[in-house]
Amino acid sequence: MTLETSFIDSALRNWRSNVDRAGKLFGNLSQEQLLQEVAPGKNRVIYLWGHLTAFNDALIPLLGFGARIHPELDLMFVSNPDRTVPTILLGEDLKIIWQETSQILWTGFSKLSVADWLQKHGAVSEEDFLREPHRNRFTILLARTAHIAYHLGQAKLSERVQT
Amino acid sequence: MTLETSFIDSALRNWRSNVDRAGKLFGNLSQEQLLQEVAPGKNRVIYLWGHLTAFNDALIPLLGFGARIHPELDLMFVSNPDRTVPTILLGEDLKIIWQETSQILWTGFSKLSVADWLQKHGAVSEEDFLREPHRNRFTILLARTAHIAYHLGQAKLSERVQT
Repeated sequence: MTLETSFIDSALRNWRSNVDRAGKLFGNLSQEQLLQEVAPGKNRVIYLWGHLTAFNDALIPLLGFGARIHPELDLMFVSNPDRTVPTILLGEDLKIIWQETSQILWTGFSKLSVADWLQKHGAVSEEDFLREPHRNRFTILLARTAHIAYHLGQAKLSERVQT
Repeated sequence: MTLETSFIDSALRNWRSNVDRAGKLFGNLSQEQLLQEVAPGKNRVIYLWGHLTAFNDALIPLLGFGARIHPELDLMFVSNPDRTVPTILLGEDLKIIWQETSQILWTGFSKLSVADWLQKHGAVSEEDFLREPHRNRFTILLARTAHIAYHLGQAKLSERVQT
């Protein structure tokens, strides 16, 4: 392993660890548990899961791996607040999409070279990238890992001690 | 900037962004707000702040930057659950220690070479590191960034809308 790939390896381990923790935590909750708020008046657990799933789906084009597979998630879990959209997906649906997007992303990550990781991501222009070369794929991976951890911490609060 | 330093630069930006967000969020709360629970029956906000501060303090020796400056934080915020230790620090104390530890860590980070980042951290033996070379300083930096984000998400729930 070269120096550069060591850094990428660390970041991918951290990504995977957070994706796996989220998949397990959300995937093990019943639909009733998913409909609970993480704190009084705050988002329901299912909204957080859908939100993270939508963000992972949006990573596919952002990193140049292809088109989104579930753009419909945005209206339910990103552009509108929780409880304002009449119909949202069930936990069973999200479980499948979470696995699909995780797989597509992982396959995409595995194909990137060291230089690819430092290329600009899809939401930055050529001009901006010249001025701000840190707006690359690797930075996105790190930021999105922290984003998963952020909402994972919130979702964790909804776990009740089993008696 | 070389390829290797680009990866380190991204990780340090992500660290700093999370440390700054945490410092601002916790630092702007009143002592009364800090004593609120993030959700019913869960940790109080001050416990999360103390917990993250203790972890940052413990990073100093773990990364080889020197001795801890506030090891007393562990009893209050790590090894015992919230509300079981009679006396804990105030928000004003934590604000100062948060800044002190952030500064020491940042200075330490700046002095590390590319090779230093890939050396083992302080809690892994030479033998284990031969088998698991990913247990290096860089991996710790990423994991601790996600750890801050995790609890930051929880603390964020305690923010009340100002009316």
